[in-house]
Amino acid sequence: MFGAVIHSPGDVRYEERPDPVVIEPTDAVIRTVAACVCGSDLWRYRGLQAVPKPTPIGHEYCGIVEAVGTAVTSVRPGQFVVGGFLHSDNTCAVCRKDAQANCLHGGGFAGCQAELIRIPNADGTLLATSEEPAADLIPSILALSDVMCTGWHAGISAGVGPGMSVAVVGDGAVGLSGVLAAVQLGATTVIAMSRHSDRQAIATEFGATHIVAERGDEGIARVKELTEGIGADAVLECVGTEAARLQAVGSVRPGGMIGLVGLPHGDLPTTELFWRNVGIKGGPAPVRAYLPHLLELVLARRINPGRVFDLELPLAEVAEAYAAMDSRRAIKVLLRP
Amino acid sequence: MFGAVIHSPGDVRYEERPDPVVIEPTDAVIRTVAACVCGSDLWRYRGLQAVPKPTPIGHEYCGIVEAVGTAVTSVRPGQFVVGGFLHSDNTCAVCRKDAQANCLHGGGFAGCQAELIRIPNADGTLLATSEEPAADLIPSILALSDVMCTGWHAGISAGVGPGMSVAVVGDGAVGLSGVLAAVQLGATTVIAMSRHSDRQAIATEFGATHIVAERGDEGIARVKELTEGIGADAVLECVGTEAARLQAVGSVRPGGMIGLVGLPHGDLPTTELFWRNVGIKGGPAPVRAYLPHLLELVLARRINPGRVFDLELPLAEVAEAYAAMDSRRAIKVLLRP
Repeated sequence: MFGAVIHSPGDVRYEERPDPVVIEPTDAVIRTVAACVCGSDLWRYRGLQAVPKPTPIGHEYCGIVEAVGTAVTSVRPGQFVVGGFLHSDNTCAVCRKDAQANCLHGGGFAGCQAELIRIPNADGTLLATSEEPAADLIPSILALSDVMCTGWHAGISAGVGPGMSVAVVGDGAVGLSGVLAAVQLGATTVIAMSRHSDRQAIATEFGATHIVAERGDEGIARVKELTEGIGADAVLECVGTEAARLQAVGSVRPGGMIGLVGLPHGDLPTTELFWRNVGIKGGPAPVRAYLPHLLELVLARRINPGRVFDLELPLAEVAEAYAAMDSRRAIKVLLRP
Repeated sequence: MFGAVIHSPGDVRYEERPDPVVIEPTDAVIRTVAACVCGSDLWRYRGLQAVPKPTPIGHEYCGIVEAVGTAVTSVRPGQFVVGGFLHSDNTCAVCRKDAQANCLHGGGFAGCQAELIRIPNADGTLLATSEEPAADLIPSILALSDVMCTGWHAGISAGVGPGMSVAVVGDGAVGLSGVLAAVQLGATTVIAMSRHSDRQAIATEFGATHIVAERGDEGIARVKELTEGIGADAVLECVGTEAARLQAVGSVRPGGMIGLVGLPHGDLPTTELFWRNVGIKGGPAPVRAYLPHLLELVLARRINPGRVFDLELPLAEVAEAYAAMDSRRAIKVLLRP
C-alpha cells in the first residue's frame, strides 16, 4: 500500500510501504476512508522538530475495518469506524477516569496518512457507526479523530458551562473547534480571536458571538470590554506559542480558568496565576471519552466540525496538502485515497 | 489600644498603637474577641520576607462591632462578626463571580493581632451571627477567617466532589483544614501526608481515611498504592515550598487536579503537567464566598475547624505565640485580648 513518509523538513513523499497487518490480538487494520494533516504535523515539516530518519506520518483517520485480532470484540470487518490520534485500552485505571490520552497501555500513531492503518487497542480506540454514514458527513466524522475532540477538551478542561464567557485564542482548526465546543457547552459570550476573514466566517458560523482581531494588549483590552471589564470566565488556548499563552493569561478574569490544548512551547508564569486565582488545565485530548457524544451530535447533524476542512486532495497529493497548510493557503486539508 | 507590631525578624512586640477609627463610610471598627497567628506571618518572623520598618501584623479575627460608617448596612454595633483576611466589596464584577480575594476594590489587613481592628468594606467582608455564639465555638469561627476557608479553597479549586480520592500535602493548620474540607466535599479516600503524631490525630479526627508519613518518592509510591496505582484524583498543596509542590505533582493521577493554596515559592513545571493532563488552580481564598456555608456548618456543630488551635495565649503574650509556632511547639495559636 501507499502512504505519506516525511524524509526531512519540507519533504513529505507518498510512497509504497508494507501493508499493515494484525500483530497483537487486540489490533485492527482499517482501510482509510479519509485522513488529514494536523497543525502538529507541520512542526516536523517546518523543521521545528527533528526528523532523524524517514518516518510514516499522520494520526487522524476514519475508515472501514479490514481485519481484526482474535481479542477484538467491539468492531468487526466491514464496519465504518473512527478513532482518536492516541490509542487506549479504555479499561485501565486511568481510562476509567476518562483520561484515555494517558492510558497506561496506550500510545501514539505514525503513518495514518495512508491507504491502510494498523490500530492497536482497537476495542478501546475505535467507535463504529451502526451503518455507513452519508458521504457528506465524512469530514465532520474525520474531525472527531483530533481537532474537534481537542477543541472540546479545551472547553471541558476550562470547565466551560452554561452562561459563561469564553475567549478562544487561535483560529486554526483547533481554535475554531474550540469555538464550536464552547457554544455547545452553553457559553453565551464566545469571543473568537482571529485576524483572517475566512476563519472569522467559520467562527461566526460555529456560533461565536464576537470576533476580536486585535492581539497583545489591544486584544486583551477588547476581551475585557466584552466581559464587564474583568476578562473571560474561561480562555481556550489553542496555539501553544508564548504569545498565545500570554494572550490567554491576559484575557482571563481573576478566578477564571484556561484550557490548554496548544502544544506547549515553554512554561507558564504560575506564580502570577496563583495571585490571580487563575487555573490551567489541559493536554492531549482523551478522544475516546468524547467520541460517543460528539459522534452522536455529528450523525444527528447538530454540529458540523468538518467545516474546518477548506481543501480536499487525493491522498497521493499529500505533499501538496502540507505545502498548502504551511503557506496558510488552507486551514486544514482532507485527504482521500 | 494595644496590638502586635513586628520590628524585625524574631521581634514581635505587644505595644500601644492609635485606636482604629472609621475613616471611610464603608468602614467598621470591631473589638477583637479572638485573633491568631498565621503560618504566613512567620515569613517575616523568620526573615524570609523583609520587614523594612515596624509594622502592625495579623490578619485573622472575629469580634464585636464597635462602630460603623454611614454607608454600612449589613452589620451594626454590638453584633458578633467574622470576616476574611482580605477585605472585599462583594459587589464588583469580580466578587459577583465569587472571586472576592481578587475584588477590584479590596485589599489586605495589617494589624489584626490587636484589641481593635478597622475593617474596610465592612458590608462585603464581615458576616454577623444572629446572636453571640457559644464560647466554645469561638475557635472554629475564628478559623473561618483564614485557615478553614483556605483549606476549603484548595478543595474547591481542585474540584473535589463525591467519591473522589484526595491527597493533602502539608499538615499545618491549612493542610488539616484541607482534610476537613475534602471530607465535607464528599471525597471517600482522603490521604493526609503527615509525619507528626499530634497532627495525624487531628487529620484522623477530621475524617482522613489514610495517613502517609513518607515523603518524596516513597510518599508518592504510598499514595499510588492507595489509589489503584495511578495517584489521587485531586491533591491539595497546602505548603508552597518546592518540595511540597513536587510531592503534589507526583501524587496526582493523569487527568487530575492540584488545588494550590500554599504561598508559592517558584513556578511549576507546566509542560510536564500538560503532557499528563494535570490541572492546577488556587490562590488566596475568597473567604467571603465560603463564609455563609461554613459558618452555618460551624454553628450547627457539624464541623470543628477550631481543632487546629493547640495553644491559647493572652493577646499580650503574642511574642510567645510566634516563638511557639516558629519552633513547632504549636500548630496554631489562638490569642484573646
